[in-house]
Amino acid sequence: MGSLDLSSDNSSSPQREFKPLDPEEFRKQAHQMVDFIADYYKQIETYPVLSQVQPGYLSTLLPQTAPYLPEPLETILSDVTKNIIPGMTHWLSPNFFAFFPATVSTAAFIGEMLCTSFNSVGFNWLASPAATELEMIVMDWLANMLKLPNSFMFSGTGGGVIQNTTSEAILVTLIAARDRVLATNGSNQSIRKLVVYCSDQTHSTFTKAAKLAGITPCNIKSIPTNLDAAFSLSPVLLRKAVEGDVAAGLIPLYLCATVGTTSTTAVDPLEPLADVAREYGIWMHVDAAYGGSACICPEFRQYFNGIEGVDSLSLSPHKWLLSYLDCCCLWVKSPRLLVKALSTNPEYLRNKASESESVVDFKDWQVGTGRKFKSLRLWLVLRSYGVANLQSHIRSDVRMAKVFEGLVNADRRFEILVPRRFGLVCFRLNPFPWAGSAYTELLNRKLLEWVNSSGRVYMTHTIVGGIYILRFAVGATLTEDHHVAAAWKLIKEGADATLKGIHN
Amino acid sequence: MGSLDLSSDNSSSPQREFKPLDPEEFRKQAHQMVDFIADYYKQIETYPVLSQVQPGYLSTLLPQTAPYLPEPLETILSDVTKNIIPGMTHWLSPNFFAFFPATVSTAAFIGEMLCTSFNSVGFNWLASPAATELEMIVMDWLANMLKLPNSFMFSGTGGGVIQNTTSEAILVTLIAARDRVLATNGSNQSIRKLVVYCSDQTHSTFTKAAKLAGITPCNIKSIPTNLDAAFSLSPVLLRKAVEGDVAAGLIPLYLCATVGTTSTTAVDPLEPLADVAREYGIWMHVDAAYGGSACICPEFRQYFNGIEGVDSLSLSPHKWLLSYLDCCCLWVKSPRLLVKALSTNPEYLRNKASESESVVDFKDWQVGTGRKFKSLRLWLVLRSYGVANLQSHIRSDVRMAKVFEGLVNADRRFEILVPRRFGLVCFRLNPFPWAGSAYTELLNRKLLEWVNSSGRVYMTHTIVGGIYILRFAVGATLTEDHHVAAAWKLIKEGADATLKGIHN
Repeated sequence: MGSLDLSSDNSSSPQREFKPLDPEEFRKQAHQMVDFIADYYKQIETYPVLSQVQPGYLSTLLPQTAPYLPEPLETILSDVTKNIIPGMTHWLSPNFFAFFPATVSTAAFIGEMLCTSFNSVGFNWLASPAATELEMIVMDWLANMLKLPNSFMFSGTGGGVIQNTTSEAILVTLIAARDRVLATNGSNQSIRKLVVYCSDQTHSTFTKAAKLAGITPCNIKSIPTNLDAAFSLSPVLLRKAVEGDVAAGLIPLYLCATVGTTSTTAVDPLEPLADVAREYGIWMHVDAAYGGSACICPEFRQYFNGIEGVDSLSLSPHKWLLSYLDCCCLWVKSPRLLVKALSTNPEYLRNKASESESVVDFKDWQVGTGRKFKSLRLWLVLRSYGVANLQSHIRSDVRMAKVFEGLVNADRRFEILVPRRFGLVCFRLNPFPWAGSAYTELLNRKLLEWVNSSGRVYMTHTIVGGIYILRFAVGATLTEDHHVAAAWKLIKEGADATLKGIHN
Repeated sequence: MGSLDLSSDNSSSPQREFKPLDPEEFRKQAHQMVDFIADYYKQIETYPVLSQVQPGYLSTLLPQTAPYLPEPLETILSDVTKNIIPGMTHWLSPNFFAFFPATVSTAAFIGEMLCTSFNSVGFNWLASPAATELEMIVMDWLANMLKLPNSFMFSGTGGGVIQNTTSEAILVTLIAARDRVLATNGSNQSIRKLVVYCSDQTHSTFTKAAKLAGITPCNIKSIPTNLDAAFSLSPVLLRKAVEGDVAAGLIPLYLCATVGTTSTTAVDPLEPLADVAREYGIWMHVDAAYGGSACICPEFRQYFNGIEGVDSLSLSPHKWLLSYLDCCCLWVKSPRLLVKALSTNPEYLRNKASESESVVDFKDWQVGTGRKFKSLRLWLVLRSYGVANLQSHIRSDVRMAKVFEGLVNADRRFEILVPRRFGLVCFRLNPFPWAGSAYTELLNRKLLEWVNSSGRVYMTHTIVGGIYILRFAVGATLTEDHHVAAAWKLIKEGADATLKGIHN
């Protein structure tokens, strides 16, 4: 009131006591954000699925430097609406049928809130006992749901750990396998002789992980597959490749098989592949990032036949078990091999519990040191929904994919290219079977561009066996039957427009 | 009403339509979780900082398998309170002075909520343009705050990316350095000849990353430091080591220097180290996980002197910039070397934007393929608080550490072991300087155990130069002056009790 001393009411002044975690301010802003997000979910269908912005769009909208003084949440949220959301490809849209959808749920969201809020760093047991122990329990729960043998469970002789991505799961097991062989073969020179195997359908991250681990690029052997065998890896060809390498003085190290490949959800036959691996002392890993989740249903469990013969298995609940990113579950038969390759023991982390060897220190199961309370999310999902609902969720996606498959089959201009196993339908527009493959590919490229640029549906493509294929992956959490029906209607419209355009 | 048909009101039946992301159910449960977390923050001081449970405690409290039917949120939250919280070491407690605290804020929390909610997978630009572009902008903002040269910025000739952990930042740059050398040295055999350098104070994750990358363990050279040089890495000793290796026919590859080591926050002299690195074509990385954040204040920026001469730099805002886990910022001068070593280009990810090379695809800057909308958290922090508040936050922690240092100095039974630079005070109880070092170590071990088992304060130890040291790290977000004063009072009580115990 007339005072010239402004210091006491200058509310935006940074000199005021700065409390970044005042519980009541936290409560207020977090409630505000909950409503913002719930509203986003309600409106999600109103946004183009695939963002239509041009490269560099955002740098013209935001300042070049961070603000010196605070800005209110309202301003920031308004920028999210105006500037961020239009630049997003909306992975949670019910009209997202691209790649593999990344699935979500209320339970996983609030589990992640809890995980974030604790911010506990579980590098070793003592640093947060509950974080380590709950992860062990949840990994055993999921192993049980998948009917994995005891050799993969803590309650048996193995164990599991949550990694961020399949890439890390492959990398750490590959390192464990590598160091086991290097230890027995003595000379460090033998790293040049190590050979790893995959199929030409294995995810590209496998080659990347092998290069990271120092495997000579020409020793990363990709075994060809073909349409007749539904792109699955042939144990006969694997054996042939291994025999050739052994004869050439090389050392077979690691095999990555897949249950549900990225291009077409092909399934490699685990049992006969494991026989070859066992015979040659090869570490066999199964990447079941997508397909593995389906194995919680008895009718899909057959794809894990032979799993007792492999050394490690990874599966990403963020792909099909409603868990949000990042969540990749890795089980291993020999935790001690992981720990041997990845353990560190600096003085500043030493403690009695770890030294007694009565506890698990998850820092020795992963690349990094720090780690969050990762299991809370999965724990919330498993408890909030129960096995029954998760099974019916998988079945519902597969049912919708079957419906789509039926629609494609009923239209003579289209064809299904590979047998559908899970929620992915691989098809193409092929109205003139006598036309050359280049022409058919062009048609399908044009159709895909037409569909995606509409913003109403997003799907992607692949090329397998030289054939350009459209992929329609059912699985976004919000997708219902009518979205699938509308997508098919749009694709047919796109086919009409494409065929008309080509002939005019 | 008397009907025998129970199907319509059997509310726990999984046969009911299962909607894992109903926006209104989401709103309700997320609000519930906000209140649960805000209440946890309000009560956090009532819990023992260091968990006092015994190994295996949780497996006796939880069932061995996941439930078949859903459980209500109330039951789960009650289990969190009863079973999980007692098993946690409360990293956010204001009485947490262990390791380096992991800092948090309301802005980062709601930023993480937003990131989780979008669940957008930004492996390449097209998969979520806003996710890639905001990360580029935020990395440039932070680079500006740190006064990094243009050679580390997208607006200049470099660029930055958010990794999960320092381990990954080191691993990917080491791989880029390794593959550059292997490409020029031709023979793959030369991986055996590659040598990497660090000091005996470098974080243990460096050795781990080097082993992951296939560096021969005996070629990981740890250069000794000493108390007289405050445990900083000597450029003279580095040069000597490098010269010896070159003379022996080895190839110097990579140097990891540190700004703020884990044991004592030692700072390696970047400028003269970079001179040696440049001369021998060594990739020099700076791990500024903890200390780097302080460099947003002009009075600490000196520790980055010489930064223009290094190849890469990592810094973890989760350590001191209020961002929650995981958040490690990595800047590189030559993004193309990272991309060359880490890129993959499978058909199913191909798109026009990536092929035009007009965009950044962050999958080629990291180990994994998938990645979240990571920059939202940091963006929210920088905008909500502004540079001014972040600077005052750093200064407030340092001021409290100085106060603690003064208290230690004023008690003759204690001594400060290494000069305090940031928020960490390294000290020990040393009432009988004429006693042997084994005796003094025993005293301090007993004191630490006394303090930590009280549950009222958690601090940790280290050993440097053969000396057992207590570490008191000020920096937990909720810590205020009175917590520091109370902690010191408790430590003094512990000293009394320990000395009495020893002499009785």
